[in-house]
Amino acid sequence: MDLVIYLVLAASILALGFAFYFYKSMLKEDEGTDLMKKIALHVRNGAMAYLKQQYKVVIIVFVILAVIFAVMAYFGLQNEWVWFAFLTGGFFSGLAGFFGMKTATYASARTANAAKNSLNDGLKVAFRSGAVMGLTVVGLALLDISLWFIILTQFTDYDLVVITTTMLTFGMGASTQALFARVGGGIYTKAADVGADLVGKTEYNIPEDDPRNPATIADNVGDNVGDVAGMGADLYESYAGSILATSALGAAAFAKSAIDGMQLKAIFAPMLIAAVGVLLSIIGIFMVKTKEDTNMKKLLAALSRGTNTSSILIAVATFFILWGLGIENWLGISFSVVVGLVAGVIIGKFTEYYTSQSYKPTQKVSESANTGPATVIISGLGLGMISTAVPVLTIGVAIILAYLCATGFDVNNFMSAENLSLGLYGIGIAAVGMLSTLGITLATDAYGPIADNAGGNAEMSGLGAEVRKRTDALDALGNTTAATGKGFAIGSAALTALALLASYVEEIKIALVRVAEHASNGLAQITDNIALTAEEIHAASLVDFMNYYEVNLMNPKVLIGVFIGAMMSFLFCGLTMNAVGRAAQKMVEEVRRQFREIKGILEGKAEPDYARCVGISTKGAQQEMLFPSLLAIIAPIAVGVIFGVAGVLGLLIGGLSTGFVLAVFMANSGGAWDNAKKYIEEGNFGGKGSDQHKATVVGDPFKDTAGPSLNILIKLMSMVSIVMAGLTVTFTLI
Amino acid sequence: MDLVIYLVLAASILALGFAFYFYKSMLKEDEGTDLMKKIALHVRNGAMAYLKQQYKVVIIVFVILAVIFAVMAYFGLQNEWVWFAFLTGGFFSGLAGFFGMKTATYASARTANAAKNSLNDGLKVAFRSGAVMGLTVVGLALLDISLWFIILTQFTDYDLVVITTTMLTFGMGASTQALFARVGGGIYTKAADVGADLVGKTEYNIPEDDPRNPATIADNVGDNVGDVAGMGADLYESYAGSILATSALGAAAFAKSAIDGMQLKAIFAPMLIAAVGVLLSIIGIFMVKTKEDTNMKKLLAALSRGTNTSSILIAVATFFILWGLGIENWLGISFSVVVGLVAGVIIGKFTEYYTSQSYKPTQKVSESANTGPATVIISGLGLGMISTAVPVLTIGVAIILAYLCATGFDVNNFMSAENLSLGLYGIGIAAVGMLSTLGITLATDAYGPIADNAGGNAEMSGLGAEVRKRTDALDALGNTTAATGKGFAIGSAALTALALLASYVEEIKIALVRVAEHASNGLAQITDNIALTAEEIHAASLVDFMNYYEVNLMNPKVLIGVFIGAMMSFLFCGLTMNAVGRAAQKMVEEVRRQFREIKGILEGKAEPDYARCVGISTKGAQQEMLFPSLLAIIAPIAVGVIFGVAGVLGLLIGGLSTGFVLAVFMANSGGAWDNAKKYIEEGNFGGKGSDQHKATVVGDPFKDTAGPSLNILIKLMSMVSIVMAGLTVTFTLI
Repeated sequence: MDLVIYLVLAASILALGFAFYFYKSMLKEDEGTDLMKKIALHVRNGAMAYLKQQYKVVIIVFVILAVIFAVMAYFGLQNEWVWFAFLTGGFFSGLAGFFGMKTATYASARTANAAKNSLNDGLKVAFRSGAVMGLTVVGLALLDISLWFIILTQFTDYDLVVITTTMLTFGMGASTQALFARVGGGIYTKAADVGADLVGKTEYNIPEDDPRNPATIADNVGDNVGDVAGMGADLYESYAGSILATSALGAAAFAKSAIDGMQLKAIFAPMLIAAVGVLLSIIGIFMVKTKEDTNMKKLLAALSRGTNTSSILIAVATFFILWGLGIENWLGISFSVVVGLVAGVIIGKFTEYYTSQSYKPTQKVSESANTGPATVIISGLGLGMISTAVPVLTIGVAIILAYLCATGFDVNNFMSAENLSLGLYGIGIAAVGMLSTLGITLATDAYGPIADNAGGNAEMSGLGAEVRKRTDALDALGNTTAATGKGFAIGSAALTALALLASYVEEIKIALVRVAEHASNGLAQITDNIALTAEEIHAASLVDFMNYYEVNLMNPKVLIGVFIGAMMSFLFCGLTMNAVGRAAQKMVEEVRRQFREIKGILEGKAEPDYARCVGISTKGAQQEMLFPSLLAIIAPIAVGVIFGVAGVLGLLIGGLSTGFVLAVFMANSGGAWDNAKKYIEEGNFGGKGSDQHKATVVGDPFKDTAGPSLNILIKLMSMVSIVMAGLTVTFTLI
Repeated sequence: MDLVIYLVLAASILALGFAFYFYKSMLKEDEGTDLMKKIALHVRNGAMAYLKQQYKVVIIVFVILAVIFAVMAYFGLQNEWVWFAFLTGGFFSGLAGFFGMKTATYASARTANAAKNSLNDGLKVAFRSGAVMGLTVVGLALLDISLWFIILTQFTDYDLVVITTTMLTFGMGASTQALFARVGGGIYTKAADVGADLVGKTEYNIPEDDPRNPATIADNVGDNVGDVAGMGADLYESYAGSILATSALGAAAFAKSAIDGMQLKAIFAPMLIAAVGVLLSIIGIFMVKTKEDTNMKKLLAALSRGTNTSSILIAVATFFILWGLGIENWLGISFSVVVGLVAGVIIGKFTEYYTSQSYKPTQKVSESANTGPATVIISGLGLGMISTAVPVLTIGVAIILAYLCATGFDVNNFMSAENLSLGLYGIGIAAVGMLSTLGITLATDAYGPIADNAGGNAEMSGLGAEVRKRTDALDALGNTTAATGKGFAIGSAALTALALLASYVEEIKIALVRVAEHASNGLAQITDNIALTAEEIHAASLVDFMNYYEVNLMNPKVLIGVFIGAMMSFLFCGLTMNAVGRAAQKMVEEVRRQFREIKGILEGKAEPDYARCVGISTKGAQQEMLFPSLLAIIAPIAVGVIFGVAGVLGLLIGGLSTGFVLAVFMANSGGAWDNAKKYIEEGNFGGKGSDQHKATVVGDPFKDTAGPSLNILIKLMSMVSIVMAGLTVTFTLI
């Protein structure tokens, strides 16, 4: 049984191997004319320069946090592996973003060049490059997971519960890295995008990515650092987090199992599903191809064939995996996985419905442009708010079904200690199910920005309307498939966060034991407020802990926590929105200045000062990303110190529920405005440069900065709480 | 001691008496020229016609609900008084709105006419008319409360816990009425306002309230039905709800008190504070006057003198009241009241800070107009989101302090059964403290729309720029004082909702006993799932119920409830926003049509078809208000049926936390845009008709439709849960 972990390691190497293969084969493609190469180089250098700058800031934060964890370990408030595990999580998460971005910046000109031949060739280059990112993310995540598991089982005498919970702390590293990447990258890209659009498209009525627009290079760099590197780090975190949280829950749920080895099986189950998912993703990726005489519809069919095949296969395979593992109630737990998959599909479909110009809701937003910008905004906000209903209800049904399936529909003992552990495990593994085919779903998501950049390259290199039309078609197609991807990402975030809640309580248990053991270390006084013996702690169930810490809805500490959690989501979004607003304003002023002061710029006779615009985005992102990100780390610690375990759990629930709904709202409002914008750009309702057009630009920071960052915020707060549990149980004010 | 209730009755008669006196003295003022009278009559008739139309719809809903309650009473799921108490609550709430609006529509022309003399005269008429509304609301609420208390103690043998909880059900009537009034009125007024502004101000560049604008009458009618009648019903609900919830908590907290009569004292305490508040409000109202040679600063000082005096006096008086009543821990509970008052002031001040053009945040929103409408929207949204931090933290601190004060800072037994009941009582009475001087704070809030309408009348009757300037000054002043009023309203809503949560659990207890007693009525089978004996139920504390129903944060039912609650707030706002959007679009099209088709309309030679615009708003409001309002009633019932008590409590907490934060966000974003709009109208950043100007119009539905309705939504969901508790405990699916 112990050897299963080597299967996971093998899957990780397989993923990385294919990623490398696709990367190499992409590099073999022709990068096109000298001008194309030059532009690509500009973008590549800008993106790499930004990423280096960002990593410099992030490294400082990581070092400080690692030192804090080391100090905590010294005082027995954490174990001695955490600080290092934390660093590796951050490192791998950053690496996933870095590789993805490197690939994307090499792929854009090549995609544009391939699109000169045909739509199909363009798709092939872009999609395979997206697959590099998808496979790198899953490969690195499984590598980190399997190596750590091997190390901790070989070199420590921790029991499996402690091992799996310790591994969760590298999740915190990944989440921290992901938040910085999303927030920093998000501010960068949207400041550039909004700035470029507001002046270029709407004031001067020149096309997107026109080389005369000084913000064009910054805009293209932004797509890479925000949409590619940010997304890579983000999904690395989601993927690893869901597997780690579920393994930890499995270790806890089966800790007292009478059957030997059942605990290990429960730990391996999510890892193995993910490992098989890698294989099926690769199969799916190879299935994405069309004949030469292709059109949009056939392309979409090809992409769908790839993702659908992978999804259906993993659903079927899950039954065999869990049956083969011989896990208790394998049938029920398999259905939990299927529940997760189906929920992801439903949320994805509804996301598409609400944000695609092919359906009524977004069409109505475009229509409302007839009565001016205010009604565009009102109807977009209204759409986004209403669109939260289906995802929330879907997640609600998924939670209850995943729980019931895993517990054999034992409604009469719904909350018995055993059923609760099993049920939460079911919820966690549903999230793993959703993300199991990330290798291919991320590929369909990541190739969009590559196609977008290819379009930019084509425009700037003057490749002509036909090529641009093809890259635009690829980009539009990417939006459709990305909608489904977003459904999976957001749905899995909610389920994973729930699983992390339970892991938090498990960690509280471990922390209590650890603190009790270290009481001789001078902590005796502080630990006086823990009125439990080690035996009691070991025997206690999750519900016992709820009662002990009075984590019920009448406890004012819980209620205050919930309020603060709800507020945190809004505050965080407000800060990032304002950051984008400020940076975009500077960008707008700079672009206007250049148009005004650089003679001949509009006639294409003088070259704009691209570097200044890149500098504005870089500086804006660097300055603005720190405060909101640190807030996410500090808030759970502060609430823990003041209000204890009850307050922290309230905070996490409040942040999770409001954050989830707010994220869906912002993503869908933003998506609808973005597509309404495209529709107006096609000449409807006033066309480019009209007031209506200007108003729809508002969607960008919604969709690509604040919205996606919320997913990470929710989980990061949980991760921080888990890592800080030792502090929370030893010291609280009230 | 029993006689205290007659003091409350006396205070209610005092309030109504002074309301009548102010009303009569306002009527004695001269209504001005014939044209002024004619315009006022137009608006008055339009407003009354709308209100009648609205009441027709609402009556049907009320009759249906009353019948349902009667049926429930027959099956022992509710007691036999509920259906009637429910109706009276709705009736009085509607009456408060009706009287307020009647007064406002008589006062507008008189205010305009008085403003011809001086600013001071204008203030006097408008403010005294606002006071009619303030005193009517508190008078009717105390009348309803005292009469019902007398009836139930005289004619039934219910114990005090059952009596106070039964009285809460008339709160549901008030909440239902208030929601319809706010939503219907809010859609009406904003459809008219946005419609009038978008075409009149921004497309044709004619002044606000210009008689050439076909939507002008509808706009002025809207101010009355939305801002006046809606606000009246809303605050009636808040005021009565906070007193009733606190009395119910007091009855429960002191049910087992060893000292005779302590329970009754706890019930009377909030009523008595409110009664004394009436007296102090009247004193405050009389203190609002200035000398003839006045200016804005002196006017503001006069208003502040009135409200501050009342607030300080009630803070001092509370200590005497509670000491005089001889309630246990009177000192601590008095401090809870003071905590509420101070929290209200803090939230009010910060609301002003974030939304007034005198401070940086709103100035920055105006500034961002330099870079176009999208940045105006982004910065407004960012501001609103960030502005949620202070109110949430203030409420958090208020909750914990009110709780600790009431329990004598007994931190070691924070959640003991006794402390929990006492602490929740402290939270409830903090809300009563916030609202105790509603008589005057509502006057300062309600006179704003009257001044606004006076401005409309002045504009349409051509009274000249000087008069209009004065009414505008009064209106602007009203915005500043209204900000403080909003702080009190929203803060008290959060605290009251928390108190209602506890009342819900008390009602569960009562329902369990009632159902057990009626088991012979054919419910025996259903009640099998209640595994408690009557003795156990009586002996159980709030925490016992939490444990019995497993209302902890690991229960998936609770979590799903929280998710749905969070989503409900967004869905509700989305529905009302879209309703405004749709109605406003129709209005815009109609106004454009009239400008296009009616010859000579812009030159003032032909009269616009005002009635059609009134009709569009009326129809829009009628059609659109039903669904969101009914949703608020159905959601808690549905969640109760499916997920039981745990799910309902999750729903209420989710709705409360997200709803509160969302309400602050929308109110402040909306307020900031509104003031930015005024600033731009003064000729800054492009002035009237610019894109920037158009974009700021988006704030209206935020501020006046969706935002304020959320306060009621939160409480209505709690009230519905309380009334439906009998159903929830007898029948749940999972």
